[in-house]
Amino acid sequence: MKLRHLSTAAADFEAEFQRVLHWSAETDSAIELRVAEILADVRLRGDAALLDYTARFDHLQAQSVAELELTRDELKAAFDAITPAQREALKAAALRVRSYHERQKQASGLSWSYVDEDGTLLGQKVTPLDRVGIYVPGGKAAYPSSVLMNAIPAQVAGVPEIIMVVPTPRGERNPLVLAAAYIAGVHRVFTLGGAQAVAALAYGTATVPKVDKITGPGNAYVASAKKHVFGQVGIDMIAGPSEILILADGTTPPDWVAMDLFSQAEHDEMAQSILLCPDAEYIALVSAAIDKLLPEMPRRDVIRASLEGRGALILTRSMEEACEISNRIAPEHLEVSSANPQAWEPLLRHAGAIFLGAYTSESLGDYCAGPNHVLPTAGTARFSSPLGVYDFQKRSSLIEVSEAGAQKLGVIAAELAYGEGLQGHARAAEMRLKK
Amino acid sequence: MKLRHLSTAAADFEAEFQRVLHWSAETDSAIELRVAEILADVRLRGDAALLDYTARFDHLQAQSVAELELTRDELKAAFDAITPAQREALKAAALRVRSYHERQKQASGLSWSYVDEDGTLLGQKVTPLDRVGIYVPGGKAAYPSSVLMNAIPAQVAGVPEIIMVVPTPRGERNPLVLAAAYIAGVHRVFTLGGAQAVAALAYGTATVPKVDKITGPGNAYVASAKKHVFGQVGIDMIAGPSEILILADGTTPPDWVAMDLFSQAEHDEMAQSILLCPDAEYIALVSAAIDKLLPEMPRRDVIRASLEGRGALILTRSMEEACEISNRIAPEHLEVSSANPQAWEPLLRHAGAIFLGAYTSESLGDYCAGPNHVLPTAGTARFSSPLGVYDFQKRSSLIEVSEAGAQKLGVIAAELAYGEGLQGHARAAEMRLKK
Repeated sequence: MKLRHLSTAAADFEAEFQRVLHWSAETDSAIELRVAEILADVRLRGDAALLDYTARFDHLQAQSVAELELTRDELKAAFDAITPAQREALKAAALRVRSYHERQKQASGLSWSYVDEDGTLLGQKVTPLDRVGIYVPGGKAAYPSSVLMNAIPAQVAGVPEIIMVVPTPRGERNPLVLAAAYIAGVHRVFTLGGAQAVAALAYGTATVPKVDKITGPGNAYVASAKKHVFGQVGIDMIAGPSEILILADGTTPPDWVAMDLFSQAEHDEMAQSILLCPDAEYIALVSAAIDKLLPEMPRRDVIRASLEGRGALILTRSMEEACEISNRIAPEHLEVSSANPQAWEPLLRHAGAIFLGAYTSESLGDYCAGPNHVLPTAGTARFSSPLGVYDFQKRSSLIEVSEAGAQKLGVIAAELAYGEGLQGHARAAEMRLKK
Repeated sequence: MKLRHLSTAAADFEAEFQRVLHWSAETDSAIELRVAEILADVRLRGDAALLDYTARFDHLQAQSVAELELTRDELKAAFDAITPAQREALKAAALRVRSYHERQKQASGLSWSYVDEDGTLLGQKVTPLDRVGIYVPGGKAAYPSSVLMNAIPAQVAGVPEIIMVVPTPRGERNPLVLAAAYIAGVHRVFTLGGAQAVAALAYGTATVPKVDKITGPGNAYVASAKKHVFGQVGIDMIAGPSEILILADGTTPPDWVAMDLFSQAEHDEMAQSILLCPDAEYIALVSAAIDKLLPEMPRRDVIRASLEGRGALILTRSMEEACEISNRIAPEHLEVSSANPQAWEPLLRHAGAIFLGAYTSESLGDYCAGPNHVLPTAGTARFSSPLGVYDFQKRSSLIEVSEAGAQKLGVIAAELAYGEGLQGHARAAEMRLKK
């Protein structure tokens, strides 16, 4: 395989490195126009527009949107129809994901308050969203694990109504996806997809209830639609291609590292897999393992295209330098494949998820370790976070000023309000002062 | 004043209520096009474009962008030049805002982890953003309090570099704004504004460093620019007109409630002030207080336009019904002007900030009670939160799977991965299984 080999010591490293990282999030303006039309049409015509687009794009005819809703019995039937091993795996994964997100809620998602020396109460009330929508792609990227990763944090947050949409082209349903919805606490499922499904969730129709937030991955139309309705409803981040960065000190079996690179590359041709390592001999071993293992992989064509197009094996001067480069990339998935990963973890400032040690393959985290697999891509880990319970909660400040507190605060507020030319603010504060 | 009086018992209430609430967040497409041009130009030409736009829009000539940076000495001079009372008020407000946000960080912004029964470590690392940009408007809406409310949470989060931009049309500087920057922990200040300032922060230029997130209010050009660069950098919410909703049980002096309605209405003509109360006589008293107090207000023309255009006094059947209507509105500011506010607070699900009891005028919260005054508007409190320390932090999942853990997790992950057709994921998990 013609995999890119770079070295930080090379004169052209910076230019080559920039070329590897380059990825444009620019959206196609033709898609944007088309999406804007679909959104406006669903907003105007509601269910009728949904039926039209579902017939046209998904080749699925229905007399009413109610026909497109799946019953709890249908979900249960899907769950009963998969293999026992699949059922056990889904249940075990759901249990661990739920347990992690319950810890997350305890750690950062509870209301708090305190009373100051004047008897004034200050705090923040944390409440779940009323209703959320989860977009689940159909077709080749139909991942039951994504159903768990989106629905369970919402359920743990306490969202009373979780609505899932999933396209079923020509009526073809993915039993694993429906089984995952069954155990993940999804309340209602509509077999709708595309920009029209996003529009239905954002604006509501006679049949599909309007939600407060939409999460979940989708194609370019779905991404464009989510960006368009942002503000009307909340959305999670718009995801770019998936990425893995592996920092290796040379102590992990090279086959393991090669397979971890594959596990990212197999998603699609735009996925990115990068190895950073200070040991040239080890890089050669990984490179050989890649060539050895590739022919065994059913998705070898995608893996090859991804690795040759966007992958890189980068020789660094040290593990410290590898950590610095990792911070520049701010990867979605960051494996620290080292005998002593805790030594490097404090140096790693930006990453969606950090997988520590040789046993922590990204794939364990993708499915069942517990943390969420919906993670910031394309360097957005610099300023955003994994999907979590916090995405399905919102906060309200609480303030109850005591009479004594109003005397002190009123003087300060009035002074600043007059300084800003807002006399109404000042007078409102002064009225609470004792004469 | 011709203030709208509604009653929930009236037959046409729902239609009238919808008319009051109507506000369109649609942006002007001419502004969007102009903003896209400015962004592209600054991205391409950097400092040169910044100098051109600053000369054209702010009538401020400079030879270099470095000339537009204010030194720490200039900020200190501004702080020294304001009155002692203003200095004390700013310092007192900053102290309280800092104290509240430190509590917030303790309550929801610390790293956490745990070890499961197999010795696998799971957790989340919370880290500050590296560099943030704060937009501060110039001109009539130049609020030093907003400098405190944006910069202090960033500082408490531990952001090492806080860059402020503020336009100074014709070179006119607002000493209170600069004094606030001085005490709020802002690291660098550029006298830049408009879409060009947002572009400089989002893309970076030779002189202005690229930031990871941009917060702070601005006009339609600034809002459009922030929305455009969202994804490239993080942004806070796009703010709509400011709103207050007062739930009154009739026990607060009517003058106080009238002035609290004014304090919102005086912001601008699109600001919204609504009173919900089950006591018709009390509503009449507030209405009389409004007519009595209005002539005294320097900003009476704005207040009248706002109250007549978008305000309403609404008679409800009960306080419970008032709480339900409040939840439908999801107001930015919610005053519970009641003798027993804690009885109603649990019923209030959606609001940016809840001000409890007669002494808690919104203006005390706006300036100095402690909680943030940057709050979700236009019903977005249904899914978003006050600006806070959490906006200047991001989280990374931490996973360190033990050898024993890999044996259990590997079986589950492989089963699910094969089910999704991702053999690389499955093999990566299986390789960690003991033979």
